[in-house]
Amino acid sequence: MCGTDILAAKPTIENPKGAGVSCSPEPHVLLNLDQGDPMAFEPYWRKMGDKCTVVIKGSELMSYLSDRRKVCWFLETELEEAIKRLHSVIGNAVVDGRHIVVGTGSTQLYQAALYALASPGGPDPISVVCAAPYYSQYQEETNYLRSGLYKWAGDAHAFSGKDGPFIEVVTSPNNPDGSIRKAVVNGPSGHQGKLIHDLAYYWPHYTPITSPADHDIMTFTFSKSTGHAGSRIGWALVKDEEVARKMTKFIEYSSIGVSKDSQHRVAKIMGVICNGCQDFKSDHNLENFFEFGRCLMAERWETLRQVVAKNGVFDLPKFPTEYCLFNGDFAESRPAFAWLKCNGDREDCEQFLKDHKIMSRGGGRFGSDPRFSRVSMLSSDEVFEQFLNRQAIFTKYSCLGE
Amino acid sequence: MCGTDILAAKPTIENPKGAGVSCSPEPHVLLNLDQGDPMAFEPYWRKMGDKCTVVIKGSELMSYLSDRRKVCWFLETELEEAIKRLHSVIGNAVVDGRHIVVGTGSTQLYQAALYALASPGGPDPISVVCAAPYYSQYQEETNYLRSGLYKWAGDAHAFSGKDGPFIEVVTSPNNPDGSIRKAVVNGPSGHQGKLIHDLAYYWPHYTPITSPADHDIMTFTFSKSTGHAGSRIGWALVKDEEVARKMTKFIEYSSIGVSKDSQHRVAKIMGVICNGCQDFKSDHNLENFFEFGRCLMAERWETLRQVVAKNGVFDLPKFPTEYCLFNGDFAESRPAFAWLKCNGDREDCEQFLKDHKIMSRGGGRFGSDPRFSRVSMLSSDEVFEQFLNRQAIFTKYSCLGE
Repeated sequence: MCGTDILAAKPTIENPKGAGVSCSPEPHVLLNLDQGDPMAFEPYWRKMGDKCTVVIKGSELMSYLSDRRKVCWFLETELEEAIKRLHSVIGNAVVDGRHIVVGTGSTQLYQAALYALASPGGPDPISVVCAAPYYSQYQEETNYLRSGLYKWAGDAHAFSGKDGPFIEVVTSPNNPDGSIRKAVVNGPSGHQGKLIHDLAYYWPHYTPITSPADHDIMTFTFSKSTGHAGSRIGWALVKDEEVARKMTKFIEYSSIGVSKDSQHRVAKIMGVICNGCQDFKSDHNLENFFEFGRCLMAERWETLRQVVAKNGVFDLPKFPTEYCLFNGDFAESRPAFAWLKCNGDREDCEQFLKDHKIMSRGGGRFGSDPRFSRVSMLSSDEVFEQFLNRQAIFTKYSCLGE
Repeated sequence: MCGTDILAAKPTIENPKGAGVSCSPEPHVLLNLDQGDPMAFEPYWRKMGDKCTVVIKGSELMSYLSDRRKVCWFLETELEEAIKRLHSVIGNAVVDGRHIVVGTGSTQLYQAALYALASPGGPDPISVVCAAPYYSQYQEETNYLRSGLYKWAGDAHAFSGKDGPFIEVVTSPNNPDGSIRKAVVNGPSGHQGKLIHDLAYYWPHYTPITSPADHDIMTFTFSKSTGHAGSRIGWALVKDEEVARKMTKFIEYSSIGVSKDSQHRVAKIMGVICNGCQDFKSDHNLENFFEFGRCLMAERWETLRQVVAKNGVFDLPKFPTEYCLFNGDFAESRPAFAWLKCNGDREDCEQFLKDHKIMSRGGGRFGSDPRFSRVSMLSSDEVFEQFLNRQAIFTKYSCLGE
């Protein structure tokens, strides 16, 4: 069902390569599950062979400009068309009537959106909030230049809308915990602040697509949708033209546009994905990327849940079952990160994992409890396998009361 | 001498296609010579055919990471090697013992350098200055986020080093006027401030290479060295490891790295350029990019100077003759921009050009006199030809005293 020639190499409970190593303290190689480097999807793209290959001649894509008439003048037309087609095929976001702004990853677009919503600015910087646990980088990305336009104000749950104007970031599914979210702050007279919806993980391999998202500013990234993090391509769907213009201006000041080589490559890969999805719907030829991703993530989560249940050391979040309009079935979310919570008396989950040579990102970084730590579910098969082996080791340590 | 099959299409004084149209008020198409879009070099790269072609498979260059052990962990090793080789072949900058930081164009690196030199910062932002006329974007790139770390303080000539800590940007050759520069501010006890050397135009097609540049922070951009602006690749050569680390941190916060697709492409093209330069030295096979660029720029400047001398409307800067270590001969600079000054009573050069449907960038944007305006010398052959035709029209207007 999942293009299993690729997946067969992964350990499962039924094929307990991990369990076989469980009582051994080795290997004690350091496993980096701190960052969300999405190498899990590489085998799929290897299998695709030359279908996504791009060829760029020395004389191509040389100009700064793509189309002066567009609000985002450095957005390649082929990428704009590919983004619209992809969202239409997946059904995860409204694109009609939206302006598309391309960025060097969604990281640059987050900052472009802050600039657009906060400028020209007043005497004090506008507060930026997000419900905890929130993406660990928001705080640093908001504050590193000590901007007079905006400042990080932390957990949206602890923020009163009466404290003045604010921008609320809504990450859904949420990084780190995979939950589906809505804005939480009520401003004066029940009005919300200005909203940025970070939808990096609103793709059918991670979560059921329940409706096309329809918000003022929605950001996406190719890094998480397909695993091509090295291309640094993100995009925003923006309702208001003036906001899109200001975001474009930010990117002009920040980097005078976005790599055209990567825009070209991403457009090509998106086209292949769309073809795969559409063919799949007709003949289930297993070349549907999101079907591959869904199976991969479902298997990883199932395996992890079983190992975690067995060792009793951690808790994992539970997700509701929802109907996915794209897949046409009921399913739970299978997020890109596991938000582990230490059971018992352990108060520093990151340190506990580090003691077992697993690098993760502790709850404190997400404005949350240090009993939590975030672990990437998108590592390569080899690293994920070793992670499961370590989990099996935990059983032993756990039995010994360590 | 210049690979003239490409250059023959360009107008010259001897082949006065421009002069033939000089008395006609047509065409009055709007010519955009405001931005420095470097399309002049495209014919060279077309002529190179497949030599610089890159092929990228769907499964390649997917990770965020390049080499964790390097200060700049997202710098591809092949690009690092190519940058070192290029500077060694050209002899325009010292690379030994320097850290290389890659950026999304040198625009991002300029801001990374400000961040690195200004952080963690004090109670007041550090002043950033540059001798006027200075690059028009420095001011906006410094101020757009109203950073508490740094602020634009304008013309370095008007700045006293006694006014507190400062960063001086030294652009050499200078944009807009092509002059060769050194730092101008003397701080307390004759000490200079912290320096950023913007060497975007220190390449042998624009100016004689008189010695390898050897400064604390030197930034370069592929956009201007070869004309590949669409790839958005710049790099900095940095002496101090801690500064390089902070610059890397800035780019991590700003965009989590730099397009690997473009890094790969740029490495390939740099390799072809180096091969061409080295072959050229042995057999003058005319595939030396910088020799092509030098001839192209020399012809454009010669033609422009002759037309300008004829119409008497403008003054152009004069440049000293210097010995170029790369070319092995004496030559003048042939900058990427012409810094036109209106003669006589005309006080707004930008407006005067605009009246003739030529978009340029007025002196005021560069902290200078509005009698100046900057015109790109890097447009496509077709646009440059039309620009010369307009210059010829000026003669008529000038004769009529308009």
